[in-house]
Amino acid sequence: MPINQQILLDNRPKEEATVSNFKLVSSETPALKDGEVLVKHHYLSLDPYMRGRMNDSKSYTAAQALGEVMGGGTVGEIAESKNPKFAVGDKVVGMGGWQQYSVVDGNAPGMLRKVETQYIPLSAYLGSVGMPGVTAWYGLMKICEPKAGQTIAVSAASGAVGSVVGQLAKAKGCRVIGFAGGADKCKYVVDELGFDACIDYKAHPDSKSLYKALKDVTPDGIDGYFENVGGVILDVVLSRMNAFGRIALCGMIAGYNGAPVPITQPQLLLVNRITLRGFIVSEHMEVWPEALKELGTMVAMGKLKFKESVAQGIAAAPEAFIGLLSGKNFGKQLVKLN
Amino acid sequence: MPINQQILLDNRPKEEATVSNFKLVSSETPALKDGEVLVKHHYLSLDPYMRGRMNDSKSYTAAQALGEVMGGGTVGEIAESKNPKFAVGDKVVGMGGWQQYSVVDGNAPGMLRKVETQYIPLSAYLGSVGMPGVTAWYGLMKICEPKAGQTIAVSAASGAVGSVVGQLAKAKGCRVIGFAGGADKCKYVVDELGFDACIDYKAHPDSKSLYKALKDVTPDGIDGYFENVGGVILDVVLSRMNAFGRIALCGMIAGYNGAPVPITQPQLLLVNRITLRGFIVSEHMEVWPEALKELGTMVAMGKLKFKESVAQGIAAAPEAFIGLLSGKNFGKQLVKLN
Repeated sequence: MPINQQILLDNRPKEEATVSNFKLVSSETPALKDGEVLVKHHYLSLDPYMRGRMNDSKSYTAAQALGEVMGGGTVGEIAESKNPKFAVGDKVVGMGGWQQYSVVDGNAPGMLRKVETQYIPLSAYLGSVGMPGVTAWYGLMKICEPKAGQTIAVSAASGAVGSVVGQLAKAKGCRVIGFAGGADKCKYVVDELGFDACIDYKAHPDSKSLYKALKDVTPDGIDGYFENVGGVILDVVLSRMNAFGRIALCGMIAGYNGAPVPITQPQLLLVNRITLRGFIVSEHMEVWPEALKELGTMVAMGKLKFKESVAQGIAAAPEAFIGLLSGKNFGKQLVKLN
Repeated sequence: MPINQQILLDNRPKEEATVSNFKLVSSETPALKDGEVLVKHHYLSLDPYMRGRMNDSKSYTAAQALGEVMGGGTVGEIAESKNPKFAVGDKVVGMGGWQQYSVVDGNAPGMLRKVETQYIPLSAYLGSVGMPGVTAWYGLMKICEPKAGQTIAVSAASGAVGSVVGQLAKAKGCRVIGFAGGADKCKYVVDELGFDACIDYKAHPDSKSLYKALKDVTPDGIDGYFENVGGVILDVVLSRMNAFGRIALCGMIAGYNGAPVPITQPQLLLVNRITLRGFIVSEHMEVWPEALKELGTMVAMGKLKFKESVAQGIAAAPEAFIGLLSGKNFGKQLVKLN
């Protein structure tokens, strides 16, 4: 039996999450029962929602149990099979967690999905053609409702979700403005992803300066905003929203660690008759087929670009995750496991 | 020609609006041209939106011009007519403004609407069967989407809009919680209007105390919230909203005067996948016939109760308006003009 290295949640964060919240253990993988398969994980996806699960308090996902393997999306291949539906070597997407192997009941619906890797790289199923991609698709298409000629803005624009939001909005004929942290990310967002402009929020320490930068690149205001971050950016964007603007609330990284950042002028939501909606993509499974088809086609045709930030080996996962929470990653954060 | 007393906007408020922002003048009404009618106003409606118009800054309505008659809804009767569509004595609803008479082009579409007063009192067309009533109807039915068995909350519950929101929600089978200022208003809201509970926000000086009071009367949380006030109540209600809750943002009185009150925990909008929408009823004219029919029927049948706070004479309008902004009125604020 292969040795399976795993990362458990050892203790909950007091304020900011740290690597000491996690613990690395290893054990042999168990023998398979009939119907089960052993999946060898190639990549683990690290995502901001995991920070919410580390708390014991109410969030939109159940709290991660202490002493158990951290949950998370994985892609890999069938290493051993006692299920006729899966052959050794099949490439699969699942929720294998922060570990090198997982044993899965191949008959349980929705647990494992076979994918093709001729035109789409395996890791993309954790990014543009996976949960982050569908998240971008849902929030943009169903909440921001992009119309040709309108202006769409998105925070964390170089990230797994934001990069898809912007490229999809461009494909719909919109003017697209991104926010990202640092000149390198902003250059990538404009030069490689084709956004019309990108604001380096780290270059604007106060909201007044950030507002001025935003005003300069949104002469016609903002019609749709896709929020991946929360905090000061949301507050400033509200001041540039046009009447009947739409805001999709997808992530609040800024609020996960430490104190929440308030919306200082809620009256603007009324003055501009804004529609704001929080959502979680896993509650909208009905759109996944349509979204994955559009996203997969765009990736296969080279019309949806993405970048990955790959940490090497399971032991590197905690540090990579902490980095993700403070925006150190550049593109979709993955961990190479096998 | 009758003498027409009028109230003009003399100067804009620095922070809080005061009676010194207004000026009373009088002049003879002009002679009518062909097609025009002279309307003698019985009642003027005072509404919170007027405070927004007193500022020069961006709001959802155009700023009120300095030196001109304050705009506002009125009900009255035709005193003189050079238009065959209107006979002397006809009862009409219009936007006559803060004055005793207005001259109206009877052929201009939407300027004057003849109403019946056999089953519905004339003043109700400025309240439950007028703009405030349709406002309540739209925000509740189209945004809060009340479902039998769910819990709906509304602020300014004894007011022109809030009282209709609550009674409509009860008619739809909901549990209904109101907020109002003072024991008298709360007693009226529960005993007369039939709400399940009403919280006297003045009895709760801090948000912790207000939260506890709200929790006690919302054992199953809140599914829909109709916001007439803004400020601390909105912030506290957010902590009691259920997943997929709906918030209709109709009024932000607390923000009109002085500093806006922030939303301190915007992450709750995401955690609970809230849909929040600001609206202005005048932008949804398509619902008025349906809404007025339901509201008029309910009033005529005695199933929609309302209360009026009537100031006497045009000269009393400014003080009554300032009182409205601080919640001194009890029920729909009117001014008896003639």
